[in-house]
Amino acid sequence: MARATDIKFMRRTLQLAQKGSGFVSSNPMVGAVIVKNGKVIGEGFHQRFGEAHAEINAIESASQPVRGATLYCNLESCCHRNKKTPPCIPRIIREGIKRVVIASLDPNPEVNGKGVEFLRNAGIVVETGIMQEESDELNRFFFKYITTMLPYVTLKVAQSIDGKITEKIGEQTWLSAKASQLLVHKWRSAYDAVLIGANTVKIDNPQLTVRYIVGRNPIRVVLDGNLTLNAKYRLFHADYSSKTIVISQGNQDKKRIKRYKGLNCEVISIPGGSNNRIPIKDILRVLVQKNITSILVEGGQQIFSQFISQECVDEIAVFIAPKILGRGLSTFDLENTDMGRDFKLIRYEECGADVLLTYRI
Amino acid sequence: MARATDIKFMRRTLQLAQKGSGFVSSNPMVGAVIVKNGKVIGEGFHQRFGEAHAEINAIESASQPVRGATLYCNLESCCHRNKKTPPCIPRIIREGIKRVVIASLDPNPEVNGKGVEFLRNAGIVVETGIMQEESDELNRFFFKYITTMLPYVTLKVAQSIDGKITEKIGEQTWLSAKASQLLVHKWRSAYDAVLIGANTVKIDNPQLTVRYIVGRNPIRVVLDGNLTLNAKYRLFHADYSSKTIVISQGNQDKKRIKRYKGLNCEVISIPGGSNNRIPIKDILRVLVQKNITSILVEGGQQIFSQFISQECVDEIAVFIAPKILGRGLSTFDLENTDMGRDFKLIRYEECGADVLLTYRI
Repeated sequence: MARATDIKFMRRTLQLAQKGSGFVSSNPMVGAVIVKNGKVIGEGFHQRFGEAHAEINAIESASQPVRGATLYCNLESCCHRNKKTPPCIPRIIREGIKRVVIASLDPNPEVNGKGVEFLRNAGIVVETGIMQEESDELNRFFFKYITTMLPYVTLKVAQSIDGKITEKIGEQTWLSAKASQLLVHKWRSAYDAVLIGANTVKIDNPQLTVRYIVGRNPIRVVLDGNLTLNAKYRLFHADYSSKTIVISQGNQDKKRIKRYKGLNCEVISIPGGSNNRIPIKDILRVLVQKNITSILVEGGQQIFSQFISQECVDEIAVFIAPKILGRGLSTFDLENTDMGRDFKLIRYEECGADVLLTYRI
Repeated sequence: MARATDIKFMRRTLQLAQKGSGFVSSNPMVGAVIVKNGKVIGEGFHQRFGEAHAEINAIESASQPVRGATLYCNLESCCHRNKKTPPCIPRIIREGIKRVVIASLDPNPEVNGKGVEFLRNAGIVVETGIMQEESDELNRFFFKYITTMLPYVTLKVAQSIDGKITEKIGEQTWLSAKASQLLVHKWRSAYDAVLIGANTVKIDNPQLTVRYIVGRNPIRVVLDGNLTLNAKYRLFHADYSSKTIVISQGNQDKKRIKRYKGLNCEVISIPGGSNNRIPIKDILRVLVQKNITSILVEGGQQIFSQFISQECVDEIAVFIAPKILGRGLSTFDLENTDMGRDFKLIRYEECGADVLLTYRI
C-alpha cells in the first residue's frame, strides 16, 4: 500500500484519538481505523479512562469481517495485563488482522516494542513511525507521565509586549483577546488540572472553569500554603462539578483547616522545604497520584517563577497582547536567571489581536 | 490589459524602487517599467537623492521607442518644479506614453492627484491603486515625512520572553540570534539614522555600522544631554564614513564641548524641556532638517520610554529571544502607562531562534 494512503488513514486515526482528549488520562489518547480493500470498515477511539481501547472499539464497529484487513493505530497496541481492560493484541491476532500500521511505539516500559514483536511473531506485518511526530505531540502529556511519573506542566502566560502581567501590583489587568481566552478554555478542557496561587485567587477571583466552549471542567488546584482563602471565592462555588484541591504547607492550624470544611474542596498538606516553601516537585508527585498527568499553570508571578526556577516546566504558552504597560508586575521574578535559559520556540501564531508563542524546554 | 499583467509589472516596478533604499531620502523610492506589446522595453529607478527620477531612467533605457507604451510607476509622477530635477510629466507626455499605471498617489500636497490630472488632460489613460498597499509600505518613511515633516521612527527592541533587555542593570546581555542581527544591519542600511542614548554607548560601546551585510552606514545619533562621552567609544572612530551627531542639552560647559572637537562628530545643543530633558519632538525636528526622514532607535530603556511616552513612535520591532531573564532591566519604564496602549500587530515571523513582532500605532 502506498505511503500516501497510510498517511491518509493515520490522519483519520489521530482525529479519532483526539476525541478522547480530557477523558482518558492517565491513559493515552488512542484512535483506530480498520481498512479493507482501500475502504474504512471500522473506526474507534479510547473514549474514557477504564473503558474499552480504541482497537477493540474499531473491531466491534466493523461493518464486515476484519479478517485480512489493515489496522491503523496511533499508539502501539497493548500486551500487558496489569490494567483495567484485557490486552488488545490477542484480540487483533484472533480476528485475523493482516497488517498493523502504528505511529508511535508505547513509551510505557511494559509495552515499548514488545507489542510490535508480539504481532510480528503472529505473522502480522507491522509498520511503525507513520506520522509519529503528530502522534507524539498529541500524546505528549501521556509520554511525559509514563516516562517520568510526573505530570506535563504548561505555564500559560498572558502578558504585555514588555513582559508585564498586571499594570499595578495587586490589581487585575485584562490583557488577552477574546480569541486567546477561547483557546485557554479549550486547553482547560484538555488538561487534567489548572493550578494557580492563592494570591491570584484573591486578586482575580477566577472560576477556572470551561465556559467559552463546550468541554469538561478541569480539576482546580490552588497553592495556598497558609490556608488564607475562604468561601467567598468563586473557586469554592458549589456548582462546580469537579474537585478543587487546596495545597497547604505542613501542619496547619485546625481553625484554619476548619474554614475549608463544607467547601467543595480537598485540603492536602505537604511539608515545606528548606526555604519554608513546598517544593514544586513534591506537589507534582502528590497530584500525579490523583491521576493528574497534565497541569495548566495560570499564575501568578511567584507561581510561574517557582515552576521555572525549580525546573518543573515542559511548555510555556505566552499570549502577548499588543500593549506596553511600562510598569507593573513582571511575568517572572527569578533570583537565579540561569534557570530561565534554553527554551525552544515551537510555534508562533496570531490569536485575535494577540500573538501566541509556544516554547518547550 | 488584464489586471494580473498589471500586477506582474507593478511587482517588478516595486523591486526596482527598492533598489534605491538608503540612498534617495528625503525623496521616495520610485521604480518605473515601460511595457510595449506585453514586453518590458525599459526599466529604471531613482538611484540617488538629487539624481534623475525613475521615469526618466526608464525612458532613457528603453530598447525601442516608447511611443504607445504603458508606463508602470509605483508613485504618481511629479509635476512640481521646486526641486533638483525637472518634473517628469512633460517628458512622459512628450514621449507619447499611452497609458500610465500607478500604485500610490504622491501624498506630497504639491503633487497629490495633480500629476494624474495632468496626464489625463494630455489624453493619457491613467490607472491608480495597483498594489497600493505594498507601495505605501515600501515608502512609509517618505509618507510620514512628507505629511508631517517629521521622520519615521522605529524602536528596535531585543528582549527576553519576559521583557528584559539586560540581565543586570549596567551590563550588556547578548540576546539576539544571528539572523536577527543580520536583519538589524539590513535595517541600518535602509534607515537614514540610528539613534541611541549615551548610557547605551557606555554599556554596549556599539559601532552602529553595517557589517553583516553589504550596505551603506546610517548617520549615528547619540542623545548625550550632558556631553559625558569621549574619544574612547567606537562611535567616534575615524574610520566611520558617515557622520555621528551628538545631541546635548542647552548650553554646555565649553570644556565639555571641547572634548568633542577633533572627534568625527557634530554636537547639536537643544534646550531642555520643563523636566530638564530635551523634548523628543524637538530632536526630531532638528534631525529632519538634516535630511533624516527615518530613525531606527536602538535603546536603551530610558530612550525607548521617552519615545513611547512622548508619542514619537511609528513602529516597534521586538525581537524576542527564547530566554527568560527573570530580573534585570525592563524594556520600558513608563510613568503613565496609558501612553503605551493601542498598538497593532502588523507582522510576526521567525528570525533564527527569535521571534520578530512588528507593531504600529
